[in-house]
Amino acid sequence: MAQALRVGIFGGGIVGGGTVELLTAASKSGKLAQLGAKIDVAKICVRSLDKPRDFVVGPSTQLVTSYDDILKDPSINCVVEVMGGVTHAKDVVFGAINAGKHVVTANKALIAAFLPDLQKALQANPGVSFNYEAAVCGGIPIIHTLQTDFPCDDIHKVMGIMNGTTNFMLCKMEDEGADYGDALKEAQALGFAEADPTADVEGHDVQAKIALLAKLCFGKTVPWETVPTSGISKLTSIDFEYARILKSTIKLVGVANRNEDGTLAVFVSPMVVPLVMPLASAKGPGNMVVVNSKNMGAATFAGPGAGRFPTANSICNDLVRLSVGKTVDPFPIDVPSIELNNDYTAQFYVRISITDGLGIIKQVGEAAEAAGVSIHAILQNPITRAQVDFVVTTEKGTRLSQVKDLCDRISKMSFALNPPLFMPML
Amino acid sequence: MAQALRVGIFGGGIVGGGTVELLTAASKSGKLAQLGAKIDVAKICVRSLDKPRDFVVGPSTQLVTSYDDILKDPSINCVVEVMGGVTHAKDVVFGAINAGKHVVTANKALIAAFLPDLQKALQANPGVSFNYEAAVCGGIPIIHTLQTDFPCDDIHKVMGIMNGTTNFMLCKMEDEGADYGDALKEAQALGFAEADPTADVEGHDVQAKIALLAKLCFGKTVPWETVPTSGISKLTSIDFEYARILKSTIKLVGVANRNEDGTLAVFVSPMVVPLVMPLASAKGPGNMVVVNSKNMGAATFAGPGAGRFPTANSICNDLVRLSVGKTVDPFPIDVPSIELNNDYTAQFYVRISITDGLGIIKQVGEAAEAAGVSIHAILQNPITRAQVDFVVTTEKGTRLSQVKDLCDRISKMSFALNPPLFMPML
Repeated sequence: MAQALRVGIFGGGIVGGGTVELLTAASKSGKLAQLGAKIDVAKICVRSLDKPRDFVVGPSTQLVTSYDDILKDPSINCVVEVMGGVTHAKDVVFGAINAGKHVVTANKALIAAFLPDLQKALQANPGVSFNYEAAVCGGIPIIHTLQTDFPCDDIHKVMGIMNGTTNFMLCKMEDEGADYGDALKEAQALGFAEADPTADVEGHDVQAKIALLAKLCFGKTVPWETVPTSGISKLTSIDFEYARILKSTIKLVGVANRNEDGTLAVFVSPMVVPLVMPLASAKGPGNMVVVNSKNMGAATFAGPGAGRFPTANSICNDLVRLSVGKTVDPFPIDVPSIELNNDYTAQFYVRISITDGLGIIKQVGEAAEAAGVSIHAILQNPITRAQVDFVVTTEKGTRLSQVKDLCDRISKMSFALNPPLFMPML
Repeated sequence: MAQALRVGIFGGGIVGGGTVELLTAASKSGKLAQLGAKIDVAKICVRSLDKPRDFVVGPSTQLVTSYDDILKDPSINCVVEVMGGVTHAKDVVFGAINAGKHVVTANKALIAAFLPDLQKALQANPGVSFNYEAAVCGGIPIIHTLQTDFPCDDIHKVMGIMNGTTNFMLCKMEDEGADYGDALKEAQALGFAEADPTADVEGHDVQAKIALLAKLCFGKTVPWETVPTSGISKLTSIDFEYARILKSTIKLVGVANRNEDGTLAVFVSPMVVPLVMPLASAKGPGNMVVVNSKNMGAATFAGPGAGRFPTANSICNDLVRLSVGKTVDPFPIDVPSIELNNDYTAQFYVRISITDGLGIIKQVGEAAEAAGVSIHAILQNPITRAQVDFVVTTEKGTRLSQVKDLCDRISKMSFALNPPLFMPML
């Protein structure tokens, strides 16, 4: 149902300001009117009224500091939540839904953390539309696409590069032979990485995102904190040397994949990605999602994963859909019966750091046999140094638990300098 | 408005059959019901009732041979047109609209040829929804994305690899050093290219597609037959040798681009594409569309451009949107005031075939000066043969008309074996 929106925005920062700017421009240019959309920003809730803003607050827009100024204003029928976090934002989003106001949010963490509660609240308020295009991969319209473009298809895998910071760093390591520490420093200097980069480099940022994509693709609510997650902080330039031998690169990928037995594996891990695969072509801070399905084979969606205007653009798209009455079910499929099983099978890359010595390959071979792992190839660059890194790749169909077992066994051997680093190969 | 659809399909071939198969499966699995969609295929209009079909015609579906069996059946409220062509298909599509039936079509040529008439017919029948996701780039949901994901954005360029046959051939030429003739033969042997490949290799197939994307991105109705179009039939393996020197490859690209003065250039041409650009990563028969916009920077959409199930998938998406009441305006923006000007500026690649001799570079330099073209680089591989091909690249900002003038001048020179081949560089 088409409707004029009176919007209350929570958050007057980068994304909130960008949203106001885009709406103002689209209103002035007559674009909104041409589309039949009517969107007015009535109030913006900010922490401080005195803080200078990097956008123009129009004469019909009021800055407020109390949540209730928006939540209890009956003239406001739509809330945009761009505060971030999961405490205050939760009060705002659930408060809005329970007050019968539509919600547009960019908050992946909130949705992933409270998905069942959210669905209950929406069921109790059937007139409320909930929209979150901006929550995953910033500007890429992946949420709307997954909601509406696969109803008669059968998705068997969704995977994505969904963190721009780490992709920027990995490209530095690949293109310039940079080591992890230097790549991180450059990302921090350029403002891509935070002073505390943990959430990015350890993959936690992707955890919530892949949980949401798994919900959209498979209808399964995946508790985000159960998603096994490895980051990129243990990668070194040596891994890129070996990746090159394998005609591959390394990407941090969130994956949700139907196992052969129909169970669902969801995980975040660096992966060895062959250069011929689309994911290998994602450069710099960009994001990319690949959907593998029965009808389509592979479909790829790429673009900016963050930033003021890409994210604000997604929020505006949701607002326009709301105003012209074309929103869709936020979580169109619900298949709770699918079982989760993260002990997935793959071909694995295992890098083993050793002090050189005799009989090491034999011992690794024995460990592989004991762990039930078939070795596909052994790669060792002829580099003379005290610490030697060599790589074992397994046969396809190796279970994650088997590789972990192999790495545990190797860790305990006297020649092993560190626990081996392992990652799946795409 | 949500509604149960009783569908009449025109065409029981590859795409029509695929559509029936997907709808049957989605109905049986309960997916359609879960989405709130109700879609029954009541009739399929075919040329011959006796021809064996590669899909199961359900008990509630009737094969018919007369258009009126569907168009005059008041119980049918939606027509799917997958016959192709622009004569009978025109009667069917306009007949359906004027009978108040919704339309889903995969027919890019029809839409491009009769866009103004189509918009008039839809205005006269405001209850009719017109949908054509399958018409451009098969399975890639580019139409719906352009209709709904850029309302507050400002697109300045849309370009795409939108013909799988030629992209397959160009990849062969790049990867294997194949010459044009061999690449065509292989494409024909694999069923990617038709016995008469003209529509594909001369770029005509892309002409209608880029005209439609220009309409969606810029609101301008571009008569498809006015789109300047060059194909790939004059490319040789030598062009790929030079492209490699330029760290580039060659792709057949449809482009719609705002010129600096605000006019719109729309053309189809092979282009020299740097390997670092997303378009260079489109491999084999796949399609890829890149949208450049103010808010997003670059967004990329890739997937299968043709084939039974990708195309049928897009048709099913349109049908589901229709049934659940979420269709959108087929041509949401209308900006007739934009002027077309195909004399665009770019950096150009010019390959000149000569019999070797003295003073040739000097004469080419004089021709460039006379044509007002600044030369950026001259490349000549040290290959000893009677026919020598060398390449001139121009400075950025060279006008198409200037390059044509340059090539005309060179053609008339005694050393020139053929008119030079030119193409823009991305």
